[in-house]
Amino acid sequence: MSEFLADFDTMSGFGATANGGVERQAGSEADGLTRDWFRMWLTKNGFRCRVDAVGNLFGSLEWIEGAPHVLVGSHLDSQPKAGRFDGAYGVLAGAHAATTVAERVAAGKIRPAFNLTVVDWFNEEGCRFSPSLMGSGVFTGKFTAEKILDVVDADGCTVRTALRNIGYLGADEPPMCKAYVEIHIEQGRVLEDEEISIGVVTANWAVRKYRVRIRGEQAHTGATLIEDRRDALLGAAQMIVATREVASAFPPGVVLTSISKLTVEPNSPVVVASDVVMAVDIRSSDETTLAKAHELFLQARTDIEARGEVSVDVESGSLRPSTPYHRAGIELSESIADGLGLSARRMLTRAGHDSINLKDLMPTVMLFVPSVGGVSHSEIEYTEPEDLLAGLNVLTGVLERLVVEGLSSEQEQS
Amino acid sequence: MSEFLADFDTMSGFGATANGGVERQAGSEADGLTRDWFRMWLTKNGFRCRVDAVGNLFGSLEWIEGAPHVLVGSHLDSQPKAGRFDGAYGVLAGAHAATTVAERVAAGKIRPAFNLTVVDWFNEEGCRFSPSLMGSGVFTGKFTAEKILDVVDADGCTVRTALRNIGYLGADEPPMCKAYVEIHIEQGRVLEDEEISIGVVTANWAVRKYRVRIRGEQAHTGATLIEDRRDALLGAAQMIVATREVASAFPPGVVLTSISKLTVEPNSPVVVASDVVMAVDIRSSDETTLAKAHELFLQARTDIEARGEVSVDVESGSLRPSTPYHRAGIELSESIADGLGLSARRMLTRAGHDSINLKDLMPTVMLFVPSVGGVSHSEIEYTEPEDLLAGLNVLTGVLERLVVEGLSSEQEQS
Repeated sequence: MSEFLADFDTMSGFGATANGGVERQAGSEADGLTRDWFRMWLTKNGFRCRVDAVGNLFGSLEWIEGAPHVLVGSHLDSQPKAGRFDGAYGVLAGAHAATTVAERVAAGKIRPAFNLTVVDWFNEEGCRFSPSLMGSGVFTGKFTAEKILDVVDADGCTVRTALRNIGYLGADEPPMCKAYVEIHIEQGRVLEDEEISIGVVTANWAVRKYRVRIRGEQAHTGATLIEDRRDALLGAAQMIVATREVASAFPPGVVLTSISKLTVEPNSPVVVASDVVMAVDIRSSDETTLAKAHELFLQARTDIEARGEVSVDVESGSLRPSTPYHRAGIELSESIADGLGLSARRMLTRAGHDSINLKDLMPTVMLFVPSVGGVSHSEIEYTEPEDLLAGLNVLTGVLERLVVEGLSSEQEQS
Repeated sequence: MSEFLADFDTMSGFGATANGGVERQAGSEADGLTRDWFRMWLTKNGFRCRVDAVGNLFGSLEWIEGAPHVLVGSHLDSQPKAGRFDGAYGVLAGAHAATTVAERVAAGKIRPAFNLTVVDWFNEEGCRFSPSLMGSGVFTGKFTAEKILDVVDADGCTVRTALRNIGYLGADEPPMCKAYVEIHIEQGRVLEDEEISIGVVTANWAVRKYRVRIRGEQAHTGATLIEDRRDALLGAAQMIVATREVASAFPPGVVLTSISKLTVEPNSPVVVASDVVMAVDIRSSDETTLAKAHELFLQARTDIEARGEVSVDVESGSLRPSTPYHRAGIELSESIADGLGLSARRMLTRAGHDSINLKDLMPTVMLFVPSVGGVSHSEIEYTEPEDLLAGLNVLTGVLERLVVEGLSSEQEQS
C-alpha cells in the first residue's frame, strides 16, 4: 500500500464509527485526537506547527526567509456519522504533496520562490457551531476571532471552551500566504458518471441560507379543538413541503433546496408545538435563478402565514454569491493532469469549501476527485484508492509549480 | 382568601416559570419539591403517607381498621412550560376535601363505612417518560412496576434513578381501594361557552397513539441532487400535513389529530435527515369514526411511501377505547351539584386522565371545572378562583357520601 493510503487508514481510526465512517464534530474529543495525530505527523516530517486564535492548524516548510507561503489544505472536522474522505482527504493529501515537493527541493530538482504551508481549517462543517467555514472565515477577515470564540453549541459550550478543551486555542500569527490550493471529494456524481479522474472547479454555486422561526401556541393535543390550535410544527411541515416544491418548480439539477435541522418546543407528545426553528438552504449555479427561487420561498412563507394558524419569520438570511476561481490555476491544473495522463473536466462546486473564502483573498485552485454514487455526509461516502492517488499526484504537480512560479490572480470568467 | 386558594398559591411556587406557569416534569427536582411540600402538608393534617414501587404517593385517613379506602386525587407532575392547574388542582382539592370530610367524621356528623386516601399519581403526563398515566397504570395492573422502572428518558435516565434522586422510590403497599374520584380542569371550552360550573364526565374519547419512523438516507444538502435524495424530514413533513388532513376530513370537533414530538437524525443544517421518529395521536368520541380516521392515516402513510423517497413504518400503535364512567357516580355528582345550587352538565373527556385507568378497576367519578378559553398545557392555562372553589365543594360532597355509602359499580351507557 502507498504511504499515503496507509496514513489515511491510520487517521480514519480517530472518531471512527461502527459503519466505516467517522464522527469528528468541530472541537470534539475526536476532532482533537485527529489533530493531535496530524500535528505529530507534521512535526515528524519537518513542518513547523502553528495554531491561530480560532484553532486553525498550520504546518510550514520554510526555504526562503520572509517569503510568502503557498497554502494547501482542507478540514479534519466532520458532520455527525459522516464519511472518512470529506475534508480529511484534502488535509492529508496536502501534507503528503508538500513532503514530495520538499524532497524535490532538497534534491535540487526545483528552486522554490515561496514557502509552503499545510492547513487544517477549524470547523468547516458548521454542524456543532454555526456558521460553517469558520476558521477560513476568520483567516480571510469575514468574521473576527472574538465574535467566533463566543459562538455556542446546543449545550451552551463556546468555541473558546471547546478549543481550550482539545488544546487548540492558539495565539500564533498565521503565515503570510500568496496562493491557496485545496483538493476534495466531489460529493456529486458528475466525475463518476463521465468516468473522469479530476474535476477542476471554475466557480461555486450561489447559496442563500435562512433561519426561519414558526410560532404557534402551546396547547393540549388531546383536548384542544383543531379550530383552536396554533400548531407551529404543522406550519414547519408546510414550510418543508413548500420549500421542496421550490426546487421542483425548476428543471432537474438547477435549484437545490434543503431543510434538515429542526428545533421543536416543547417537543412533548401531548403538547401542541409553540415554536419551531429551522435552517433553510437554497442553491443554484445561476444567481438570477437563485433570486427567483428566493422569491418563491418568500411567497410560500406568506401563503402559509395567510392561512392564519402560525406566524413564519425569516429571522436571518445570507447570500453567498457565485464567484469564479482563477484562470491561471484552472489552466495549470488541466495541464498537470494532462501531463500525468489523467482525464479532467471543468465543473462547478455545489457544496461550500474553505477555498470559496480563500479565493476572495488570493489566487486559489480547487480540485475534485470522484465520489462513488455522489454520496457524502454519510458513513457510506467512498472514493476509490486509485482516485485518491491520482488526485494526490495532480495536487503535488500543482504545488510544485506554485512554490516555484506563484499564481496569477486573474479570475476565470465562467 | 380561602385556605384552599392560599395553599394552592403556595404549591404553585414549586417549579414556577417566568410567565405564571409551572414546569414539573415527572421525577424532576421541581416534581420532588412539590411532592415534599405536599407530603408535609398531609402529615401535618393527620394523613399517613405511603409511597409505592412506582412513586405513587398516598396519604390516608383511617377510621375503620381493615376497611377499604375511597381514593381521591390526580397528579402533581406537569408538561414543560405548563399551567398551574392541570393535575395539581385535583390533588390539592382532594386533600382539602378529605380534611373537611375528616372534620365532619370527628364532629360525629357522618359515620364512615370506608377509609379515605388522597393520591398523587406518578407521571400522568408522559412527556419525560413514556407512556403517560404511568403510576395509575401500574396501580391498576396495566403495566408491571419492574418494566416501568426501566423506562428511560431522552438522556438515558431511568424512572428508577429519577425516583431515587427525588426520594420517591418507595416500597409501600398501596391501600386497598373501593372507589376513585378525580376532579380536573376541563381543558376544553364547553363549560365556559355554556356558563356551567361543573362537568360530570360520562365517558372518555377513544384514542389511537402511534410511534412512526421515517427512514431516508444521510447525504450532503448542498451537493446532492434532489433526484438522489431520500429526505426523512420531508417524509415526516408530508406525514404531519396529511395527518392534519385526516382531522379535516371529518366535521369540526369530531376527530382530533396531533403530531407534536419529533426526533430528527442527524439534525445538522447541511445533512439530509436519515431518520425521523414521531408520536402521533388521533382521537374521537366515537370508535367507528376513530376506526375510519385510523384507515385514512394508514392510507396517508402508504401514499407517502409510494412516492418512493422514504419508508414510513408504524412501529407501534395502541388503542384506548371509549368506555363509560359509572352511572351511580354520575347521578350522585349531579345531585350534589344541584344541592349546592351549581349548574352541571354531562360531558365526555377528550384528554386522558388517571381516572380512565381506575374506572376499569373500580367505580369511578370524574368531575370537571371550567378552563378559560379551553387552554391547557400552556403557561396561560387558567381557572377562576370561584370555579376552583365550586369544584372543591362538589368534590367534598361526593367524597362525604362515598365514605358513608360507597359507590355502585354499574357503568353509564352513554
